[in-house]
Amino acid sequence: MSEPTLRNVAELAKVHPGTASRALNPKTRDMVNAQTVQRVLNAATKLGYRPNSLARALKTNRTQTIGMLIPDLTNPLFPPIVRGVEQALEGAGYTTLLANTDNDPVREQAAFSQLQGRQVDGFLIATSYRKNSFLKEAYSSSVPIVLINRTSDDAVIPAVVGDDQKGTEDVISHLTHFEHTQIAYISGPLATSTGYERLRAFRFSMQASGLAVEPEYVVEGEGYSTGTGYDGVFRLKPFLPRISAIVCGNDMIALGALDALAELGIQCPDEISIVGYNDMPFLDRLKPSLTTVHVPQHDMGAEAARLLLRRFEDPDAAVTTVTLPTRLVVRESTGPARKL
Amino acid sequence: MSEPTLRNVAELAKVHPGTASRALNPKTRDMVNAQTVQRVLNAATKLGYRPNSLARALKTNRTQTIGMLIPDLTNPLFPPIVRGVEQALEGAGYTTLLANTDNDPVREQAAFSQLQGRQVDGFLIATSYRKNSFLKEAYSSSVPIVLINRTSDDAVIPAVVGDDQKGTEDVISHLTHFEHTQIAYISGPLATSTGYERLRAFRFSMQASGLAVEPEYVVEGEGYSTGTGYDGVFRLKPFLPRISAIVCGNDMIALGALDALAELGIQCPDEISIVGYNDMPFLDRLKPSLTTVHVPQHDMGAEAARLLLRRFEDPDAAVTTVTLPTRLVVRESTGPARKL
Repeated sequence: MSEPTLRNVAELAKVHPGTASRALNPKTRDMVNAQTVQRVLNAATKLGYRPNSLARALKTNRTQTIGMLIPDLTNPLFPPIVRGVEQALEGAGYTTLLANTDNDPVREQAAFSQLQGRQVDGFLIATSYRKNSFLKEAYSSSVPIVLINRTSDDAVIPAVVGDDQKGTEDVISHLTHFEHTQIAYISGPLATSTGYERLRAFRFSMQASGLAVEPEYVVEGEGYSTGTGYDGVFRLKPFLPRISAIVCGNDMIALGALDALAELGIQCPDEISIVGYNDMPFLDRLKPSLTTVHVPQHDMGAEAARLLLRRFEDPDAAVTTVTLPTRLVVRESTGPARKL
Repeated sequence: MSEPTLRNVAELAKVHPGTASRALNPKTRDMVNAQTVQRVLNAATKLGYRPNSLARALKTNRTQTIGMLIPDLTNPLFPPIVRGVEQALEGAGYTTLLANTDNDPVREQAAFSQLQGRQVDGFLIATSYRKNSFLKEAYSSSVPIVLINRTSDDAVIPAVVGDDQKGTEDVISHLTHFEHTQIAYISGPLATSTGYERLRAFRFSMQASGLAVEPEYVVEGEGYSTGTGYDGVFRLKPFLPRISAIVCGNDMIALGALDALAELGIQCPDEISIVGYNDMPFLDRLKPSLTTVHVPQHDMGAEAARLLLRRFEDPDAAVTTVTLPTRLVVRESTGPARKL
């Protein structure tokens, strides 16, 4: 059977071809009443009509789809970012196709190729390694890309990030206000831009507050996971009698740190205060609820989507990094420093 | 410029075309050393080579991609299901492309059409409406589909579900063991198969335990959301003095119910016990931690993926519904019934 045409769909749905076309195009769908849209979509599905097949894509040079790479969907940070992206793109009639890379560079590159092969109009990349050899080449191949919650060492690519410097400064001010001076740090992976930047900001903020960073108080984490936080506390164990606060590279790490403290019978915050980063959902419901830095996840996704849409209109626009403000959220996991 | 060929990629990567082909195919990638794979992938990206373009898809009749529809990524139930799917498909060399439908039937159908237009080999559908008019037609159009955590009223489609009947029976046994008799229910949307089945199982289990279900103790929820649970408790407010336990259609509803109780100054579990459903991540960290029914999310995704792979091999295999066992997880939100 030959490829079904718009006319076939219109005939089956018993509407004018112009109506069928409007019903099939997300940008013009609002102009058609909902029942008719449903009838046209049913007819299209029944016939296997492909409004966005390669044929049409080649004709219009647009597929109205965006590919998005996520490093770890099970980190609750990412779903609100995805929702922000979708809400910003939906108005423009785009569908978002997601691929979860599980923090694996080979899967990341394979997913990128798969989506590129499906002619997505552009990419939003939230996977987090600072050095992705494919990014530089991908970017020079002219497919529009915007990075989310990360920057790249290898290429100058537009990005939307949170203000890690200010966010971390606020954490240290909060802790010094509570008279903490012996502060440890469990970082995210330093191969990620957020892991690297937040540790740098920690060192800077400590210094700016006149506090020393003991080398043995800094643990370099292997992943943005509860396991990293749990292991990190055990690596800090010999020094815990002299430490009154632990700042963590993200919330998942902080949750693992809380688990380890509970296992060691150390009270939080009475003996040791814990701080996370990101303000992922549900933290306010924990016991103790977690003090953290709120990163505007929804806005970050929405802003990145808007930046990508602008690049479609003007591919030669200046490459910008949009830095969104963060906000310290003080909850139960931080309190006055104990007497050391 | 003409479409780059495998030979172009091999030349740029300085490898034999056979090596390039193996490096580009997820199924045979393991046979090539990691550095070479990286070099070939870089060359492919640089040239814009499309190993899975429509041209190749038409030739091999397979794109090695699966489309997956998710109703709400911000519900923590779904990421572990996605991970289960990916782990089962990865071994078979498939990439999963996800679309989040935000529980909107029009977005659901649009995402389905988009993915169908991109020639995915099959679909995993976790969106939850019992009646999707497009499903029946999609299924008869011969694209393989497996449903996850839902069934369909409109078509006979393979599905992987949890055992809602047994799960709900276990909840009622647990509550009657604690001498609860005045038990209320806040359901999920009855237009979803899980919402419908769990309420039915609740009525059945209550009856089997010799307990009456007061009509005004059953609230039909509008969504699987905290808002539904919060509103549900307020709708039950006139009867709360006579109720000692509230069973909820899922964990998100239970979290909202806990919020409403806290706002009303009602202690959980001392005055009212609360039970969720699904055992989504992080519930063990809440205060009070939530008693719930564990649904094997990872296994559910993995089993659905395996079922889909089997359908690729044998499209005429019998349509089966795989029911996975559930397990009651007793935590702090349930306790002995107070004296009524």
